[in-house]
Amino acid sequence: MEIAVIGLGKMGLNIALNLKDHNYQVRGTDVSDQARAKAENEGIQTFKTLDDVLSSFTDRRIIWSMLPAGEITDSVLDELYEKMNLGDILIEGGNSKYKDSIRRAKRFEEKKIHYFDCGTSGGISGARNGACTMIGGDPDVFREIECVFRDISVENGYLYCGKSGSGHFLKMIHNGIEYGMMQAIGEGFQIVEESDFDYDLAEVARVWNNGSVIRSWLMEIAQDQFTASPDLANYRGVVAANGEAKWTIEAALDMEIPVPTIALSLFMRNLSQEDDSFSAKVVSALRNGFGGHAIVEK
Amino acid sequence: MEIAVIGLGKMGLNIALNLKDHNYQVRGTDVSDQARAKAENEGIQTFKTLDDVLSSFTDRRIIWSMLPAGEITDSVLDELYEKMNLGDILIEGGNSKYKDSIRRAKRFEEKKIHYFDCGTSGGISGARNGACTMIGGDPDVFREIECVFRDISVENGYLYCGKSGSGHFLKMIHNGIEYGMMQAIGEGFQIVEESDFDYDLAEVARVWNNGSVIRSWLMEIAQDQFTASPDLANYRGVVAANGEAKWTIEAALDMEIPVPTIALSLFMRNLSQEDDSFSAKVVSALRNGFGGHAIVEK
Repeated sequence: MEIAVIGLGKMGLNIALNLKDHNYQVRGTDVSDQARAKAENEGIQTFKTLDDVLSSFTDRRIIWSMLPAGEITDSVLDELYEKMNLGDILIEGGNSKYKDSIRRAKRFEEKKIHYFDCGTSGGISGARNGACTMIGGDPDVFREIECVFRDISVENGYLYCGKSGSGHFLKMIHNGIEYGMMQAIGEGFQIVEESDFDYDLAEVARVWNNGSVIRSWLMEIAQDQFTASPDLANYRGVVAANGEAKWTIEAALDMEIPVPTIALSLFMRNLSQEDDSFSAKVVSALRNGFGGHAIVEK
Repeated sequence: MEIAVIGLGKMGLNIALNLKDHNYQVRGTDVSDQARAKAENEGIQTFKTLDDVLSSFTDRRIIWSMLPAGEITDSVLDELYEKMNLGDILIEGGNSKYKDSIRRAKRFEEKKIHYFDCGTSGGISGARNGACTMIGGDPDVFREIECVFRDISVENGYLYCGKSGSGHFLKMIHNGIEYGMMQAIGEGFQIVEESDFDYDLAEVARVWNNGSVIRSWLMEIAQDQFTASPDLANYRGVVAANGEAKWTIEAALDMEIPVPTIALSLFMRNLSQEDDSFSAKVVSALRNGFGGHAIVEK
């Protein structure tokens, strides 16, 4: 099977190498000369333009798009829409919003291009050695390319989820859960770290990974990180948020489902990015106003 | 090594059987005739009274107390305090509050009885086949009985945590994290379940357990439960709380560490036990008061 990976960044290159390991005829493209050079070094044939990569196929065209969600994905997909033909297959494996995936699938359907949304979990090591994939799109065409997902995923690590959008919807909720789990782990370790007892955090994570109720891949990562840096000395307590938890909460709001801990986990990330919170200023000013309480000045 | 298990309930009996598998000379006691009969059936020698079990030893006395936390543990420990002697070892493996463990250890120290607090995770199957244990107490005496914890725990599944209280303190935080992880998982699955897509929840848990970032023992339990009952039809959405998360939050309050998602996870359990929340009545009444909004009547 011939397959092209569009976008040879951290995730795309590793998916390409993973596919190559499974004997797919893989080729790729990226706007960055550096990314293409790196892929070539690893044995992936690359092309500079979408036209070149599309005309390199001798068999059915399967395109795996692995680009940053949002504008970049939209602009590349616009170009692919113009250049792809009836019967071609497009798998969009980025962290796209499921509503975008539904919209895009509808559009590609007009040209009878088979569009699949694929939520991809497991991080960089997963992309390279075995990911977890959640796929939405046409069930019959899915069966024709099921081997792709089986091959790049760990054993039992792919799921055909249903109609278009269902793959990214499920990946979105996965990330919402991930936010909540990570925040709970973070809060717990802060108590451990600041307690009067004298714990070795790597040892704590180690014992929790063996036989406890909270054993998990996230706890294994915590063990690795605390082993490398017992007090995470190089980190500032600032956490980015890439969108999926926000979309999970938006979906929950639309469905009127309370998801307080997932919402709070996102708010805690947002708060971690504020150096000097205005809401705290307001509370401090009110407190000063009624009780004359001392304020922390700039 | 001779060891007696006090309390042959779900956890105690399985710890006793686990110890027996590892060739300890195990005996036990329980106030319940039924519990003792069940233990005897499984090959554990039992005694009706603490006096009998204590006088059954021919060698150093090691007592494992595995009783419900709080009053029951306190009253049995009072009796043990009277009846145990210098050099005896008492391991308290229940879900006790760490402050109780610190207090009890001090008291037993007066009689030179070696007291260990042991947080035990992994549920009933862990107690039977390999638990996760977190132990606080005297480091030198710990080394003399370390084999007990090594033997009943999974590989790498025990940790000497430090002075008295440190075992139960760590187990308490483990449970706080567990509450947060479980609540996030619960919220996520509710969105999956109520979405317009048509997911099989057991399949969702299955794919998330293979290669995803949120793979975990809790997700494996979810997979088993959804496989047995796709919509958890026999459950009402009511969750009990046994104390550890409350203590985690109390400790965090004393240490002035914000643990909002752990706290909210406990509040959500408390809320799940309310059939007809008074706070919701107040909000509904206020809303009716200013806007004439319709109310839901009894």
